[in-house]
Amino acid sequence: MSTQTADHTDIRATNLAAVLGHLRRAAPCSRAAIATGTGLNKATVTSIVGELLDRRLVRETQQTQNHVGRPATLLVLDGSAYATIGLEVSARGLTALGCDAAGEQLLRWHRAGPGVDAGPAKTVAGLAALARRAISTVQSSGRRVLGITVGVPGLVNRDGAVVLAAGLGWRDVPLRTELAAAIARPDIPVTVENDASLGVLAEHLYGPLAGSANLIQVTGDTGVGAGIIADGRPLAGNLGYVGEIGHLRVLPDGPLCGCGRRGCLEALASLPAILARADETPARAAAPAGAGAGAGAGAVDAAGDGDPQQRLEALIRRADAGEAAVTEVLQDAGTHLGYGIAALVNILNPEAVVLGGAYALLATHLTPAIEQALREAVIAPDAGGCAVVPSTFPHTATPLGATAHALTPLTNGRLPAP
Amino acid sequence: MSTQTADHTDIRATNLAAVLGHLRRAAPCSRAAIATGTGLNKATVTSIVGELLDRRLVRETQQTQNHVGRPATLLVLDGSAYATIGLEVSARGLTALGCDAAGEQLLRWHRAGPGVDAGPAKTVAGLAALARRAISTVQSSGRRVLGITVGVPGLVNRDGAVVLAAGLGWRDVPLRTELAAAIARPDIPVTVENDASLGVLAEHLYGPLAGSANLIQVTGDTGVGAGIIADGRPLAGNLGYVGEIGHLRVLPDGPLCGCGRRGCLEALASLPAILARADETPARAAAPAGAGAGAGAGAVDAAGDGDPQQRLEALIRRADAGEAAVTEVLQDAGTHLGYGIAALVNILNPEAVVLGGAYALLATHLTPAIEQALREAVIAPDAGGCAVVPSTFPHTATPLGATAHALTPLTNGRLPAP
Repeated sequence: MSTQTADHTDIRATNLAAVLGHLRRAAPCSRAAIATGTGLNKATVTSIVGELLDRRLVRETQQTQNHVGRPATLLVLDGSAYATIGLEVSARGLTALGCDAAGEQLLRWHRAGPGVDAGPAKTVAGLAALARRAISTVQSSGRRVLGITVGVPGLVNRDGAVVLAAGLGWRDVPLRTELAAAIARPDIPVTVENDASLGVLAEHLYGPLAGSANLIQVTGDTGVGAGIIADGRPLAGNLGYVGEIGHLRVLPDGPLCGCGRRGCLEALASLPAILARADETPARAAAPAGAGAGAGAGAVDAAGDGDPQQRLEALIRRADAGEAAVTEVLQDAGTHLGYGIAALVNILNPEAVVLGGAYALLATHLTPAIEQALREAVIAPDAGGCAVVPSTFPHTATPLGATAHALTPLTNGRLPAP
Repeated sequence: MSTQTADHTDIRATNLAAVLGHLRRAAPCSRAAIATGTGLNKATVTSIVGELLDRRLVRETQQTQNHVGRPATLLVLDGSAYATIGLEVSARGLTALGCDAAGEQLLRWHRAGPGVDAGPAKTVAGLAALARRAISTVQSSGRRVLGITVGVPGLVNRDGAVVLAAGLGWRDVPLRTELAAAIARPDIPVTVENDASLGVLAEHLYGPLAGSANLIQVTGDTGVGAGIIADGRPLAGNLGYVGEIGHLRVLPDGPLCGCGRRGCLEALASLPAILARADETPARAAAPAGAGAGAGAGAVDAAGDGDPQQRLEALIRRADAGEAAVTEVLQDAGTHLGYGIAALVNILNPEAVVLGGAYALLATHLTPAIEQALREAVIAPDAGGCAVVPSTFPHTATPLGATAHALTPLTNGRLPAP
């Protein structure tokens, strides 16, 4: 005879998550409305709301509601006493973002480097310095830090180790352990996630397509990767290795990729690949007295070794000025990227693909070629209804998603220790 | 002020689904255990269980449980009073399967044809004849038919129309409407779904990997398609057009595909493509006095126009006999298929990919090449932990999944009209 022993802590957490979820969707609302909306009985709701009020995660408004009988006090979420910190590692540099538990931005910093070739140790030191400064800033405003999440462009295992980040030249870096040790705050949990998975979480929670049940964000700032919301939830797969389109072979015998193969999407359409090709164009235009090379802004920055952020800005200027050679580089990259996105669309049938990071900044130049590739390569009519749109967070989607990710235990009904 | 009006029918259905779900996982169990396990109050559970007993969807066992106080009667699911019918259309023919609501098989029929070139009208007539016979067989055993679901190798829209099934030569066929009209039983709902999506549902519910949260089934009996379970649930995407790997371009300038493009996976590795190539091999082997062409069984069936089921059986005999030319055809197909599967694995990181339909019957010959392609093309170490396994339902995964799919309203807590 098999009977199930219920775990009361689990049930409390599930019910707590249901109450928080109802408040997120329907606040302001009364305790009675929460009971009706969640199916929980009123005594349970009263007890949970009491605990949330104690912890300053919910507050009573001055509003009341009075259908029949005595007036009911209305409740709203409160997140002002807590904060989380989101960090991002990319070829464009390191970014830190702090938000309170209601998603209000508290701080945002970016620093260049430490550069792709600097190795993980320098990156860990740079991240730890950013994190410590962010913790102290958040705490000085009277808030408690619930957690830190870091986004990295690569495969991240369940222990927060970076198994492979070809674009950073990393392999088997125990980032979570090393960063937690360097931050030296054992009371603040540190987690590490794939950058695109965090980016799409930000789009799903805060972007113009918030709430779309099937949404993909594609980024190429370092490697090329996709974050996936499927059926309303972040897709994680078996071990977290999802959205890896960077090594799809789009051009047999194409250029060598950091992974050792040839013709990978990453070697043709990542930002570093685009910058490298664009850097070659002024020389080419100069030699055979190139026809119609555009508005001259092309002379700016062809060094190839500068700060990637500055090189990106120079590329955007050249493209916006209509420089033909640069436009062609971006069209080629858009075509390859479009075939990679087509594989995602054929397999996942999303409502939209969001172009993240540098792709968002280059969207006007990339999108026509991407849409053309989707028309050619997606088998469903009208690309299965999929729109291609630039992100509204080109600089912060990953760290913003990271701040939301660090709230996961709370969202799941696990309250911080009192 | 926004407050949410709860829909009491929805809440009743949600609670009913929770009770059925708990019974599915934990039965036999008492009403009290259901209340604890679902978080519903005891009065709600008693009312729901009463309704389920009335409808013969649950029954009381003779077992009782007696921790403290008076003994509690234990409950189990009962499905014997209801049945659903699953149908499949493929290049191999039409299949019907009947199961009771507990998943017990009641009938299984297969008929050859009507053939790929016969057009949709003949297929609808064939399906309707099978369905009517199945309904009458099920009813004569005293069961009520809750629904009929049909699996089709193509894109199926939300109205049950087949938008495109390149392998059948179908485009914009309103299959659900036409089949429902031909069956002429308005009390029995008819739904149409993609074949692979139903196949993976069968694997997820009844196969050796049942319960795996991230599972893919790949079939190639007509076109090539994948059904996907992601995070424990069937993936449907925005419009249902998921798992479409058949038109991934795996060989630039490869053979012409039914979709009009060149080098699609479907044109290289579907069963019809494999059979066509295998049919060419005896001629080739004869001409240059081929070296080591194997055990001679190759002379059987080279007609090319026979029944696909018989041609498949002949192919398996030739491959099992070690005929080199056939083995080579299957290795090539396995390599192409492996690159298609690698795209799925890179994007979805499943625990396993199940080879369905004819691929299961040919698994010993295809799997080495597939595994080799995964080693080469999946970026995560060890193919992200993904196993490649043959289906244990090579002939019935789609109709079996269809019988489960037709139970969806009940699983979601919508009881049949009394």
